[in-house]
Amino acid sequence: MTYLRNAWYMAGWMDEVTVEHGLARTLLDEPVYIYRDVAGEAHALLDRCPHRFAPLSMGRRDGDVVVCAYHGLGFGGAGRCVRNPHGPVTRSLDVRSYPVAEAHRILWIWMGDPALADPMSIMDLSFLSSATEASFNNGYINGHGHYQLFVDNILDLSHTDYLHPDTLGGGAISRTRAKVMQRDDGVISIYWHVVDDVPTPLFRQFLPEKTDRVDSWTEVDWTAPGVMKLVSGAVETGGSRAGALNVENVHIFTPNTSVSTHYFFASTRNFGVDNVTLNESIRTARARIFSSEDEPMIAAQQQRMGDRDFWSLRPALLRTDEGAVKVRRRMDELIAREASELAINRNIG
Amino acid sequence: MTYLRNAWYMAGWMDEVTVEHGLARTLLDEPVYIYRDVAGEAHALLDRCPHRFAPLSMGRRDGDVVVCAYHGLGFGGAGRCVRNPHGPVTRSLDVRSYPVAEAHRILWIWMGDPALADPMSIMDLSFLSSATEASFNNGYINGHGHYQLFVDNILDLSHTDYLHPDTLGGGAISRTRAKVMQRDDGVISIYWHVVDDVPTPLFRQFLPEKTDRVDSWTEVDWTAPGVMKLVSGAVETGGSRAGALNVENVHIFTPNTSVSTHYFFASTRNFGVDNVTLNESIRTARARIFSSEDEPMIAAQQQRMGDRDFWSLRPALLRTDEGAVKVRRRMDELIAREASELAINRNIG
Amino acid sequence: MTYLRNAWYMAGWMDEVTVEHGLARTLLDEPVYIYRDVAGEAHALLDRCPHRFAPLSMGRRDGDVVVCAYHGLGFGGAGRCVRNPHGPVTRSLDVRSYPVAEAHRILWIWMGDPALADPMSIMDLSFLSSATEASFNNGYINGHGHYQLFVDNILDLSHTDYLHPDTLGGGAISRTRAKVMQRDDGVISIYWHVVDDVPTPLFRQFLPEKTDRVDSWTEVDWTAPGVMKLVSGAVETGGSRAGALNVENVHIFTPNTSVSTHYFFASTRNFGVDNVTLNESIRTARARIFSSEDEPMIAAQQQRMGDRDFWSLRPALLRTDEGAVKVRRRMDELIAREASELAINRNIG
Repeated sequence: MTYLRNAWYMAGWMDEVTVEHGLARTLLDEPVYIYRDVAGEAHALLDRCPHRFAPLSMGRRDGDVVVCAYHGLGFGGAGRCVRNPHGPVTRSLDVRSYPVAEAHRILWIWMGDPALADPMSIMDLSFLSSATEASFNNGYINGHGHYQLFVDNILDLSHTDYLHPDTLGGGAISRTRAKVMQRDDGVISIYWHVVDDVPTPLFRQFLPEKTDRVDSWTEVDWTAPGVMKLVSGAVETGGSRAGALNVENVHIFTPNTSVSTHYFFASTRNFGVDNVTLNESIRTARARIFSSEDEPMIAAQQQRMGDRDFWSLRPALLRTDEGAVKVRRRMDELIAREASELAINRNIG
Repeated sequence: MTYLRNAWYMAGWMDEVTVEHGLARTLLDEPVYIYRDVAGEAHALLDRCPHRFAPLSMGRRDGDVVVCAYHGLGFGGAGRCVRNPHGPVTRSLDVRSYPVAEAHRILWIWMGDPALADPMSIMDLSFLSSATEASFNNGYINGHGHYQLFVDNILDLSHTDYLHPDTLGGGAISRTRAKVMQRDDGVISIYWHVVDDVPTPLFRQFLPEKTDRVDSWTEVDWTAPGVMKLVSGAVETGGSRAGALNVENVHIFTPNTSVSTHYFFASTRNFGVDNVTLNESIRTARARIFSSEDEPMIAAQQQRMGDRDFWSLRPALLRTDEGAVKVRRRMDELIAREASELAINRNIG
Repeated sequence: MTYLRNAWYMAGWMDEVTVEHGLARTLLDEPVYIYRDVAGEAHALLDRCPHRFAPLSMGRRDGDVVVCAYHGLGFGGAGRCVRNPHGPVTRSLDVRSYPVAEAHRILWIWMGDPALADPMSIMDLSFLSSATEASFNNGYINGHGHYQLFVDNILDLSHTDYLHPDTLGGGAISRTRAKVMQRDDGVISIYWHVVDDVPTPLFRQFLPEKTDRVDSWTEVDWTAPGVMKLVSGAVETGGSRAGALNVENVHIFTPNTSVSTHYFFASTRNFGVDNVTLNESIRTARARIFSSEDEPMIAAQQQRMGDRDFWSLRPALLRTDEGAVKVRRRMDELIAREASELAINRNIG
């Protein structure tokens, strides 16, 4: 499995890792151990002692030192070996570490060349951190299926009309041709701007009574490898978008293995921003939909595909696949470019 | 795994598929969805939407249209796409369909070239349909093991004396040399005609009291790939076969995957034909024997063989393997001929 | 997976096999059936009938004959077919048998060339048989992980200070440089002779009160492939080893598959030799430590290694790996020599 290495991947929600409890998670087929030092700073190490390959996540903490449970080697935050009870500390005992960054409530990890890790290249998702606690809700699913199948799912939201007809769908998206745009900075945007059609069932309950026809918008901005912002809103037909109901969400996918995916999602909104009960009901509804409707469908796709490549099965593409195909081509380009740069660097070096 | 493609395989019992409930079953490693249209006619589709490979069996029915649950493509009986909510309907959206036939209470499927599918080539098993309801009983096991191991099991019934000594065995079959015949139409027959020996324990209970010695017959007719009729009866030594106790059974095997098999079986008889209680006790006894004695033994054989070819393990053949070896050679011939015809057609085409 | 074939492997404890109950166990990826004849002599057969590959362990016993449950072939102790209900008994019906030996409460099996099987080459573990019943305790774990990882674990006992700090560890081993010796007969010894340091917590409870400083010894003798005697004792600093507390243990590893291992262990001691309660508490403590501390750590190592070779992962070796590295090199030599001898014999023959 070839993954894009030089990119920020979401490793988890910031609050999944505390000073007391680290996090062992497989990312891009590599076992990673993420923990916080006493000062609260997050660190990510290959979760495999360089000596005998014991998981460091099975070890214990001694202040800021991660101590391997098997033979007592100790490691500092950058993976530097700082303790060897059996002889001299040498650099050959260092363990691989990964750059991490914390932004927008999210722990990001860089699995490629550390010299290229620039936190400024993380997509601006500051709306997640600026939201009130009662207008922010999030979740996590360890899903079965290749991460690109999960990404495709968000890039073609016409599926909501069929997979979620009673909640997120309703038909308007399928009746609307998406605008697909590729920006110079690599962001690919897929926007459905719906004029005078029905609202989705979920939105319907927050609109004024008898609002049966709305203008609505659903706007997905994608950056590599699988980070997506999704803005969605509705207003009575002819009304102004300013002040209308609006939600700003994220759907972020990080490969676990070649056939499993970490699915992170979160939602914010501009209404009922202090309503804790509403917030929890939205959290619950979203988790239920994604885990009982989307994930099983993607798992079934993967099962049908087996270990065959997506294109080798010659999928019959629809007009609605435009965004997903653009993103897959972009990913192929990025991965190919990375491979060729690696080859050039090897020749120079 | 190379399977014979141009052959009728049993996909299921006719009553496993109703207008209300379709059947998703993997046959020859391919996922198949079988359903009945409103008029009750059966259809079989590749259970994989051509668009995104979602299982059509996860979809819903809209009259005679099978609607994919993911993006709403709709398909008719011959796999023809008849609905695309997102653009034009084109032939590239058709899904593969398979010829089906219904005969003898059985749903048959043709996994090869549809032009060659001739229902007249299905073995005559009309005794299954003409039996009274109370003299017909059937069953199904999803067994572990290559389908040829299951076929072999029926072709060498000397195993009954050892694996089922208290029910179907007794010793007479092992003491009798089978006659093995290959007919011009490809049917291979293995007949044990036993003279003046003990009846099987199961038969013993239906014979007149004190009938301890019988003439008996056990006759297996095989057609490719794994369809077998098994006739078995007994009469007091010297008696006439006309009017004797007689049962007519089928054992039919369809590959699920290379290491699992759909095992279908049914039984009819010429005594107690209106005895519902007797019929249920026979059904129960047979299901118990096949699932708790035959299937575990075949699963264990497969486990011992691992993923190695049967012949590569150099089995020590016994005289009783004559029928099974003939059938395996016949299957090898048929599969080889099919491969070479395919190659010729490709060269011509 | 290439295993050393010409070596005695532990197949089980002698009392695991009785005249009534045989033992089916996979050794070196081969299914083996071990049973005792009526006279109590142990025999080992490939657990796969030469006819149809049914497990002989699923069969029944008829006196000294092992009868296959599928078609009734019968086998004697040396694997000789002695019964064929379906035709003549021929030598092609023999099943592979393995030399076995019983010594030191252990059933040994020879998986290589039977002509080379010399029971005199079994390591002298007579202390196991000469121990009183109340000073002998043993156990068995079916562990996950390559057998060499289990062997390594015993060859580098510095792990006890980190993995078992409250029982078998304490720190003294890690503070002591091991002496590693290779003898002419192939035995590799790793001895830790500790002067004036703390006893292990487990030993502490058997020493006279206030004995906080001891001289102690931990001596491992290894023979191929994974048979280890472990002697360990302690006496108040400056005291004499004669008459000191001393335990004599074994840790014996036999490959099950390439990623699983039969772990056999036993312990004897020179104190409380008639104390049944003490004996049971030691048995329980050891089983708990090995199954809840060692095995999970080795299983985790194997998981981190996946199907990659140990050396290909470039482990960072410590001084404490000296014994394990010597043993791995010795095993590589033995396996390579066996392969080249096999090649020579093939050329001559």
